[in-house]
Amino acid sequence: MPKDVDRELVNEAVQTIQMLSVDGVNQANSGHPGAPMGLAAIAYEIWMKQLRFDPTDPRWPNRDRFVLSCGHASMLLYSLLHLSGYDVSLDDLKQFRQWGSKTPGHPEVHHTPGVETTTGPLGQGLANAVGMATSIKMLAARTDPALIDARVFCLVSDGDVMEGVSAEASSFAGHLGLDNLVVVYDDNGITIDGPTSLSFSEDVGKRYEAYGWHVQRIDGHDHDQIAAALEAAVAQTERPSFIVAKTHIGQGSPNRQDKSKAHGEPLGAEETAATKNNIGWPLEPTFRVPDPVRVLFADRAEDGKVLHQAWQAKLAAFRTDQPEAADRYDALLERRMPDDLLAQLIAAAPDKEAATRALAGTIQQTAAQLVPSLVGGSADLTPSNKTFLKENPVIARGEFAGRNIHFGIREHAMGSFANGMALSDGFIPYTATFLVFSDYMRPAMRLAALMKVQSIYVFTHDSVYLGEDGPTHQPVEHYWALRSIPNLDLVRPADSLECAAAWAHALQRKDGPTAFALTRQGVPPLARPEGFAAGDMLRGAYVIEEASSGTVEVVIVATGSEVAVAIDAKKLLGEKASRVRVVSAPCLDAFERQDKAYRDSVIPPSARCVSVELGITQPWGGIVGRDGLCIGHDDFGHSAPWQEIRAKLGMTGEAVAARIETWLS
Amino acid sequence: MPKDVDRELVNEAVQTIQMLSVDGVNQANSGHPGAPMGLAAIAYEIWMKQLRFDPTDPRWPNRDRFVLSCGHASMLLYSLLHLSGYDVSLDDLKQFRQWGSKTPGHPEVHHTPGVETTTGPLGQGLANAVGMATSIKMLAARTDPALIDARVFCLVSDGDVMEGVSAEASSFAGHLGLDNLVVVYDDNGITIDGPTSLSFSEDVGKRYEAYGWHVQRIDGHDHDQIAAALEAAVAQTERPSFIVAKTHIGQGSPNRQDKSKAHGEPLGAEETAATKNNIGWPLEPTFRVPDPVRVLFADRAEDGKVLHQAWQAKLAAFRTDQPEAADRYDALLERRMPDDLLAQLIAAAPDKEAATRALAGTIQQTAAQLVPSLVGGSADLTPSNKTFLKENPVIARGEFAGRNIHFGIREHAMGSFANGMALSDGFIPYTATFLVFSDYMRPAMRLAALMKVQSIYVFTHDSVYLGEDGPTHQPVEHYWALRSIPNLDLVRPADSLECAAAWAHALQRKDGPTAFALTRQGVPPLARPEGFAAGDMLRGAYVIEEASSGTVEVVIVATGSEVAVAIDAKKLLGEKASRVRVVSAPCLDAFERQDKAYRDSVIPPSARCVSVELGITQPWGGIVGRDGLCIGHDDFGHSAPWQEIRAKLGMTGEAVAARIETWLS
Repeated sequence: MPKDVDRELVNEAVQTIQMLSVDGVNQANSGHPGAPMGLAAIAYEIWMKQLRFDPTDPRWPNRDRFVLSCGHASMLLYSLLHLSGYDVSLDDLKQFRQWGSKTPGHPEVHHTPGVETTTGPLGQGLANAVGMATSIKMLAARTDPALIDARVFCLVSDGDVMEGVSAEASSFAGHLGLDNLVVVYDDNGITIDGPTSLSFSEDVGKRYEAYGWHVQRIDGHDHDQIAAALEAAVAQTERPSFIVAKTHIGQGSPNRQDKSKAHGEPLGAEETAATKNNIGWPLEPTFRVPDPVRVLFADRAEDGKVLHQAWQAKLAAFRTDQPEAADRYDALLERRMPDDLLAQLIAAAPDKEAATRALAGTIQQTAAQLVPSLVGGSADLTPSNKTFLKENPVIARGEFAGRNIHFGIREHAMGSFANGMALSDGFIPYTATFLVFSDYMRPAMRLAALMKVQSIYVFTHDSVYLGEDGPTHQPVEHYWALRSIPNLDLVRPADSLECAAAWAHALQRKDGPTAFALTRQGVPPLARPEGFAAGDMLRGAYVIEEASSGTVEVVIVATGSEVAVAIDAKKLLGEKASRVRVVSAPCLDAFERQDKAYRDSVIPPSARCVSVELGITQPWGGIVGRDGLCIGHDDFGHSAPWQEIRAKLGMTGEAVAARIETWLS
Repeated sequence: MPKDVDRELVNEAVQTIQMLSVDGVNQANSGHPGAPMGLAAIAYEIWMKQLRFDPTDPRWPNRDRFVLSCGHASMLLYSLLHLSGYDVSLDDLKQFRQWGSKTPGHPEVHHTPGVETTTGPLGQGLANAVGMATSIKMLAARTDPALIDARVFCLVSDGDVMEGVSAEASSFAGHLGLDNLVVVYDDNGITIDGPTSLSFSEDVGKRYEAYGWHVQRIDGHDHDQIAAALEAAVAQTERPSFIVAKTHIGQGSPNRQDKSKAHGEPLGAEETAATKNNIGWPLEPTFRVPDPVRVLFADRAEDGKVLHQAWQAKLAAFRTDQPEAADRYDALLERRMPDDLLAQLIAAAPDKEAATRALAGTIQQTAAQLVPSLVGGSADLTPSNKTFLKENPVIARGEFAGRNIHFGIREHAMGSFANGMALSDGFIPYTATFLVFSDYMRPAMRLAALMKVQSIYVFTHDSVYLGEDGPTHQPVEHYWALRSIPNLDLVRPADSLECAAAWAHALQRKDGPTAFALTRQGVPPLARPEGFAAGDMLRGAYVIEEASSGTVEVVIVATGSEVAVAIDAKKLLGEKASRVRVVSAPCLDAFERQDKAYRDSVIPPSARCVSVELGITQPWGGIVGRDGLCIGHDDFGHSAPWQEIRAKLGMTGEAVAARIETWLS
């Protein structure tokens, strides 16, 4: 329980946070002092009176989460982590924003202990927090709500609440009634361009009321008001809480407070001196932590350790009293899955002609049975994406035992929510929409890749063959646009067997996100050559149709629905066909990670190369070479039945064979 | 003026719209009947009583705009266009969703007369409408508010109001007090997944009140309520209007009304018969337009022609009375610019070492003087992007004469707003943010490219050299992710001269968007070879440093800040240097459009090739070949001072030369 602390000591503690932040930014000669100065009192109240944490185990599953959505205020977080006893030293603070340091410009999860998510791109942290709060409730519903009852505290800036992704996520949080989520809005009236009034005049609190949140308005420097508001917030049931806190950016700085200049520039020697004088802080030493402040934070950390120990006892009792639930708990936290996952998914793969979205959907049902951590949903395209987990309930307000989430028409928040879920304990989220709308969630996907979290994107309607909906809905650039993101794997399966491999790949790949590109239209099941090893599919590209002569003069590399076309085309090449190999490349990202020997064995450097994929062709040049032939489509699509599009774009076996003939001669 | 029309005839007209939509979707065996059926009464009231249009001149500059943000309801719009006398025939309606028809799956601007913007990706139409309404006010402020007073009417669906982009745009519209914008929300309680209550339980009307909009709630099938609400909406001053209209999706269909199934499936023969019987409509012929309905719409079109004629007279008087304003009007509508734009911008280019963001920013000041249509702003990074047009006012509520727009931290709405502006008369919008945040506005950029509109994106902080902010802010995949979008040109200038070319290119390119990638850090001015023609920069790639021996054995292709590095590296290659050419490639998209002769003259097929660009390398393989050398960075970045990043990533002249040496040997 928080102790009654002398006002003066509270003040000194807040100033310590402020001045560590000021000194850190000065030392780096780069960074954002204004927000840490303005938010120090709020952060103090959260960390000192609400947040349940144990610095010796930053991954304690029932810890409260602290999400700094305004990631540019990173020195605030680093200061708190240091003071609270995490493995972040004063020397680390002095290395702020330096190569390889523990204190990079924006907080990075898995890099600095106590950082829960990577923030900086605005709006994302708040949407992550919504995913975290939901995950906690879902884990509680599967185990014991008395065991899992963590809360999520999130600080947001003007920028966070202006971004659309936070609007989507906040609407969804209100819908779900996430009473374990407390968001404090740093309403400082200042953005980079100047006063927020230049661009922003809405009533933010009223907007959150419209979303169904509990809303309070306070002075963000008044400790009593902050403490009372936080108490009221955590006491809410079935409503997330939003606290509009009026603050002064750069609080204490005589010439920068309430000015844009406080936001993203070091105070510098002169203004730092003026500030320290103004608040009665010694100019030297920098990075000063008064002993009573150190003791205060150390006591708080001790409280956390005690809480954690008590929880461990509770966990032990839970294991004894509820062995089945405990096994469920372990399975979730381990993200448990069978070793022979690929084989089991292959066994579940229908051996028939169908759309890969349908085939993958069938396989996903089995995947869900084998992997209890798998949960997710679609951005209101459930029937089209084929991602509903049958016989499983839907997540709703007060009902978190289900596995299906209806995200609404909110792709961006869905992606960011999934990041929060993937960062929580217990779940592997999948999300779904049309491939073309991956654009809407791209910032979240990039962060998933950067954070190395496991998130699965089921993108259907993967080419201009979606047909009548026309060019606004037809992806052409998206295969390469997604492949371009480091650490994101794009899998475009050619048939049922490759759909099984896609799911196995995505589920076994724990250190990054995987996206599927699945067809709307039917594709035939493909024959595999003798000696085919299913595991080769996971290597990203493999020989699906060999050159019967033993001499490989031409390699046709194709993906997804174009693999069958490539095989057809080869058959039409007459006597040349015996020297033509067809390679199916469901995942070029994985293929690039193979050693050169494997890559050269699949695509021999001496062979002439053709690529067949119904999208932009330029990047294929890197695979087929300057003298290669790229068959695809380098423009937007057309509204028409898909068979007509196929004929018009020359994507039949006959047309492709003819182009290869011409190119070879 | 709208005439008093018999209730029965009104009903028949609404049913005509509904049944044309039903028949069109049935004929295509694909499409969305539910929304047109639910929205027909509202559309009738807008088109019959409010919308000022002339079907014989769909581009009349003072026409009211009708934006169907829920583009899937396209048959509603096509039916209205047909009935209202636009060049859309009954045969066109029968060709709904067929290859090359005038009636594609979603409305496409520049393709079908009377379609104001391409919609389908949800939320975009509403954000476009905000851009249009602002443009109209800006044109009025520059000419005569009595001459330009058009309004924008926009229909939105649940999906539109759930998407974050519409939230951003709506907040901004409230901020600007756009009283010439009327949005009607089709509150039908149904989405694809089922009832909206599955994912959406906010109070949308209250949210719009929080944005500062005038909000009304009506029954969307009650003509009196609709008419009164529209009257009240257009009478607003300094507030945009939002009308929450409760409707029934698939109204009139006995088995589909108020069901998800009404949304995206043809009614089919049986349900169509049941529906027509239910509302008392003959089963045959399909595509039936009763004569009195035809007359009613024809009369309305006549009214529009008269309005247009009266306006032409006003325009003639304006030309006589206000010749200076008239010239301004013409200059804006022509998007006028001098023929020697490139030369004038080159004259304005500072000959010094500086960041390309600063150089481009200086040149932009001259561009703005030469091109009155150029207006825009930044998503709250104005000082960083260097895009403020000096000595020009800021756009604000009631003040639309300015040229600078503070978009707030709303990249997505900014991009979509710019589309609306580019589709309006008079303006060439530029927008600005960090390159990494182009991800946030990507859906809007794709639509700009698809619509072939002129929109200029000033993306600064274009590489990991942005330094201390770290990987969340450091683009690595973005060059290629942007190049992958058809019809979007990415320009990454190497120095001041290329910045001038970038602006000339973007301003002269009227049929598509152009994005700049500009450095945060300084780059040196580069020497050009003898005989260098400035126009070659506009060809996308050109020889910047020739192989002095006359024999080109190696070509180094570089962009942006890496061009100087490539030139340095060449100099360090000793006697080999005389056989090495350096090519600067500011715009690979433009280079690809050149004829093969030019491309081969710049990068001879016989030469071995190296690429140097500080981002992902894979797609460069298409240019340098399978045996080429790609120097770049295939992972996320690092938080550190940029010079340290440069050294660590091996991007100095020395390190690049060493890699080329090794590769050559």
